[in-house]
Amino acid sequence: MGDIPVTVGSEVLKDVARRIFEALKVPRRYAEITAEALVFANLRCVDSHGISRGLDYVDGIRLGEINPEPSIRVVRETAVSVLLDGDGGLGPPVAYELAERVVEKAGSVGIAVGAARNLRDVGALGYYVSKVVSSGYIGVAVANAKARVSIPGVSSPITGTNPVSVGIPSRRPVLLDMSLSVVPYGRILSYAARGEEIPEGWALDRFGRPTRSPREALEGYLLPIGGYKGLALAMVVDILAGPVIGGRQAWKSVVEAPTRREVY
Amino acid sequence: MGDIPVTVGSEVLKDVARRIFEALKVPRRYAEITAEALVFANLRCVDSHGISRGLDYVDGIRLGEINPEPSIRVVRETAVSVLLDGDGGLGPPVAYELAERVVEKAGSVGIAVGAARNLRDVGALGYYVSKVVSSGYIGVAVANAKARVSIPGVSSPITGTNPVSVGIPSRRPVLLDMSLSVVPYGRILSYAARGEEIPEGWALDRFGRPTRSPREALEGYLLPIGGYKGLALAMVVDILAGPVIGGRQAWKSVVEAPTRREVY
Repeated sequence: MGDIPVTVGSEVLKDVARRIFEALKVPRRYAEITAEALVFANLRCVDSHGISRGLDYVDGIRLGEINPEPSIRVVRETAVSVLLDGDGGLGPPVAYELAERVVEKAGSVGIAVGAARNLRDVGALGYYVSKVVSSGYIGVAVANAKARVSIPGVSSPITGTNPVSVGIPSRRPVLLDMSLSVVPYGRILSYAARGEEIPEGWALDRFGRPTRSPREALEGYLLPIGGYKGLALAMVVDILAGPVIGGRQAWKSVVEAPTRREVY
Repeated sequence: MGDIPVTVGSEVLKDVARRIFEALKVPRRYAEITAEALVFANLRCVDSHGISRGLDYVDGIRLGEINPEPSIRVVRETAVSVLLDGDGGLGPPVAYELAERVVEKAGSVGIAVGAARNLRDVGALGYYVSKVVSSGYIGVAVANAKARVSIPGVSSPITGTNPVSVGIPSRRPVLLDMSLSVVPYGRILSYAARGEEIPEGWALDRFGRPTRSPREALEGYLLPIGGYKGLALAMVVDILAGPVIGGRQAWKSVVEAPTRREVY
């Protein structure tokens, strides 16, 4: 039996997702934002960050790993900056509120900066940057992610896939949103499900050796774009999104030789 | 006859370079900054952006392509932003003044942004970011460069090697400074000079076909890091450093099929 394709309108999909989150005690406004962030990714054809990721959110809430009713709190702020604490909640509402606050603050002198810590996966970073862009501002955002990236010869994760997003308002706005690994983790999962070999240059096995086996890759590491250059960029993103704001960092020095597969 | 290695102290090198620029009518302060920016790159082992690049500056001044005595002018400014016009002068003095002004403006609310247009090559972008870092601020800088980057199948340049630099102050400051091509143009030149083949994945010939011949590569294009991902990042940098500030842009849409090898 193959899959049967079903076409669902984006508004319907959003509505269903919103109801599911609400049924899990997520406040309506937060459920709406989360549903919209996920469907935004589907509409950009980035299904890895789309509605399917909502299933992880549902699991996370059920397992108690994600706080459905967080109190998003301002840790520190100035006229042009804000640091939020997400209270362990779903990422989208926290990132959305951050984007709103940064846009509001940018109204005073034209620029502003913000950060959030203690939140879960935000989905597609470009969603929040698109909000900044639609308010007429250039937006630049980075985030760090679970440590899954390494380089050949290193048998521990070094950093995460750490996405970067840049948006520029114009008659036809520009929106870049990409992770710093060659492919996302989800792509390896798809190959594993289909039992296909992955191309060279995507991943390493758990000993840090290049592999074309998706199973070995899932136990191993993703390769950064551009070798040491992409790795360096991802490490810098990790510092900005981690220790600089008092948040979690994916990267640990490789000389510490962590024994756990996930650094945090 | 092989090359004879000669060791020269960095202070001596800086002094000699400064005197050469002064002899070409570059004001002393600008000559000093330019010499220091070049030697900074050598001291970080990035010889492609080091003192050897000073020879291009000398040629540029002699050919009248670089203005030795520019009037660096403020085009627009606010309490937290500044846009400079470099009057066609050497890049380092303009970029240095920009860094100084941005740091000064950051003193008011903690963040600031600046840009410069109408200036020549700035050497290593990290030099200016390091000035920001030594003032206690996080620095992020991008620049666009001559259009020399393309992707397989495209027989025109798409964008430049467009460097990105990020600096983070700490007990041991972090300084990232890298171009978005797999290797810099100068690396191809070295291979050509030695008559060696270049590795796969570095460059394309002028028809957009992968090549291992450095001669063909010099007539062709450099490959971006990470394929389409690095290309996208370089294109976004190009928009920020070009049209957003009213400056020159390396990138032209590939559908325009430019016939000149250099887009600008």
